[in-house]
Amino acid sequence: MRTRPLKVALLGCGVVGSEVARIMTTHADDLAARIGAPVELAGVAVRRPSKVREGIDPALITTDATALVRRGDIDVVVEVIGGIEPARTLITTAFENGASVVSANKALLAEDGAALHAAAEKYGRDLYYEAAVAGAIPLVRPLRESLAGDKVNRVLGIVNGTTNFILDKMDTSGAGYSEALDEATALGYAEADPTADVEGFDAAAKAAILAGIAFHTRVKIGDVHREGITEVTAADIASARRMGCTVKLLAICERAADGASVTARVHPAMIPLSHPLASVREAYNAVFVEAEAAGQLMFYGPGAGGSPTASAVLGDLVAVCRNKLGEATGPGESAYTRLPVSPMGEVVTRYHISLDVADKPGVLAQVATVFAEQGVSIDTVRQQGKDGEASLVVVTHRAPDAALSGTVEALRKLDTVRGVASIMRVEGE
Amino acid sequence: MRTRPLKVALLGCGVVGSEVARIMTTHADDLAARIGAPVELAGVAVRRPSKVREGIDPALITTDATALVRRGDIDVVVEVIGGIEPARTLITTAFENGASVVSANKALLAEDGAALHAAAEKYGRDLYYEAAVAGAIPLVRPLRESLAGDKVNRVLGIVNGTTNFILDKMDTSGAGYSEALDEATALGYAEADPTADVEGFDAAAKAAILAGIAFHTRVKIGDVHREGITEVTAADIASARRMGCTVKLLAICERAADGASVTARVHPAMIPLSHPLASVREAYNAVFVEAEAAGQLMFYGPGAGGSPTASAVLGDLVAVCRNKLGEATGPGESAYTRLPVSPMGEVVTRYHISLDVADKPGVLAQVATVFAEQGVSIDTVRQQGKDGEASLVVVTHRAPDAALSGTVEALRKLDTVRGVASIMRVEGE
Repeated sequence: MRTRPLKVALLGCGVVGSEVARIMTTHADDLAARIGAPVELAGVAVRRPSKVREGIDPALITTDATALVRRGDIDVVVEVIGGIEPARTLITTAFENGASVVSANKALLAEDGAALHAAAEKYGRDLYYEAAVAGAIPLVRPLRESLAGDKVNRVLGIVNGTTNFILDKMDTSGAGYSEALDEATALGYAEADPTADVEGFDAAAKAAILAGIAFHTRVKIGDVHREGITEVTAADIASARRMGCTVKLLAICERAADGASVTARVHPAMIPLSHPLASVREAYNAVFVEAEAAGQLMFYGPGAGGSPTASAVLGDLVAVCRNKLGEATGPGESAYTRLPVSPMGEVVTRYHISLDVADKPGVLAQVATVFAEQGVSIDTVRQQGKDGEASLVVVTHRAPDAALSGTVEALRKLDTVRGVASIMRVEGE
Repeated sequence: MRTRPLKVALLGCGVVGSEVARIMTTHADDLAARIGAPVELAGVAVRRPSKVREGIDPALITTDATALVRRGDIDVVVEVIGGIEPARTLITTAFENGASVVSANKALLAEDGAALHAAAEKYGRDLYYEAAVAGAIPLVRPLRESLAGDKVNRVLGIVNGTTNFILDKMDTSGAGYSEALDEATALGYAEADPTADVEGFDAAAKAAILAGIAFHTRVKIGDVHREGITEVTAADIASARRMGCTVKLLAICERAADGASVTARVHPAMIPLSHPLASVREAYNAVFVEAEAAGQLMFYGPGAGGSPTASAVLGDLVAVCRNKLGEATGPGESAYTRLPVSPMGEVVTRYHISLDVADKPGVLAQVATVFAEQGVSIDTVRQQGKDGEASLVVVTHRAPDAALSGTVEALRKLDTVRGVASIMRVEGE
């Protein structure tokens, strides 16, 4: 074993960074044995240098992240700052100055992954980011490497723990969205400003990264159709139950049937209780992958948190260090297919639509005519009457999303339709 | 991209091999793009050369596997023959003659993995074997690489599809073992001679491989305690149901609490219905991994079959070819801990014991005394009387397996105990 240590610079020392530093110290011997050389924490860039950081030599702390990545003796930079800047410039500077990079930054990779990969390749460095998607769950490596000889057709995942906790709470307790969000906040599963989670931004970034890796193409966060869970009601969950389904916020990446394009989207959807994703409870994540030869695979585990994310970062750190010692690099970006990303309107899916209608004869005929005119085939209809009001619940067969939206628009214009109570896609069948 | 192809020799052209050859042909462009060079099937060693093999150039077929691996121009040998010899000699000869090896041979790796790894290292070649454990499910790479910065404490898996199919059938239909085995055989899930599956040999080989990788040590198939499912009865499954459990054949690899030893075992066990492994149906496989930082992870998918196994083989083929092009090798054996494997008697677990006893006063006191003498603490007891006969179902707290076996032996000697109807371990709590 080489005795001269590999030098690691840590950018960011919050929940994840401090755990990375802790494990690097407490498990130093194991890491050295697995890498073939010791690793040494050579510097830690933070915003608040005065904060006490247990187990970290205060001499390593700096507020000058740029100077740290420019030192020239750093082998690997671990970036756990998050956000676009200064992370992007620091990573590029690290590549220029001889370091490979391990990052947990989903927002940056989903926004500008191609440029970062290009910079890594230009300078002959590694860019690893297992921690950016679904925390500790090995996903990037299985998709990039284990399935490299297969053809992935679909990725269907619960990739945001906060929203899964909220939806699971609504499902098990009958609570409404606000009540379930309050509980998630009280228990630390939701942040004070939960927007990134509940509006689906976090899941959309992960969907972009997963779609790019799965289909060997480039998908940016802006290509991902995104709907959050804030409008999911207790009534939607109850409707799902009646259909033998539950509601999950899904990230769905699909290759078109003709193979010439891909789609990526994040939205709440009903899935059958028999689907393996339906039993993913609380803040757990799981990703379901359908590949031509492998069939259906599922990867399950904690999708966030300091320790699980640190586990993913350290797995990458070991790999990148081994590559450094072998003077090699791991697999880089594989985007050779350059498939276009189709808009949401071209996605083929099913709708569950709940309508408040006038309780009089002929309403169903009117509604059915609208579906027929839009070319959307109805699977089932359920009518319920109550005090002069009535509700119609329609579940469609598979149709392009544009035709389904067009149908809903036309339904809203009917005099006999008082309102569209809810619209939800049905997936995983 | 390099235009000169990498040459692949295929040893074995049965269910898996023919699928590997097919995908290499039909997906040649994708494989070339992912590797950075085309791959060419340079020879196929078979036992029956006269058999028609669709899509394979007859000129590539040979019965002389030794000559094929000795050719000297082969970059990668794919070994899907199975068994100890001639596979072992062929793999070693391949290393000597410049080739890296992708193998699906669990029996060989569990018997002689250390020697094969040593040979690979001596000659600077790769030895990859994702397909040897749980078919298409990425497990070897996630354990070896994704979790390389973490500490795995436990691996709990359903790694044999045949036995899971049989137990699932018994659970859902109430069928006995023989009836369920017949159905598995009729549907092609069990072989004509099902011994390797139902007696746990197949699962034990996988347990040995998983334990070695998970704990960075060496475990051979002979170190794995093995019990099959042939003695599992419909009554056992019914008892499990009453406890809120189901019965699965589990491969369990554990690090001792003090970290100084490991254990590996395969046996039927009751697990709670709430455990993610309990819902693994039919011939699916799933492996549950507990790591210090990552927490609880699960990997799920088809554990056997031509296509899924070929997917795993081809993922390894892409990785090994990339390494060849980069003149590098991937991570080799990591067995630096060299932890001893403790015998089954030292495993700490729980028992569910069903006793037929005389229906008279004082029996429970006698039985309880035996448990106390052996130092085994009782969790629950259920008594049922019927026509002068009675049954006692005892569930213990955790105790060393030796103490539990000793207890059962002592119970058998009691006059009031007419028989021990069943003994099953309880896991996953």
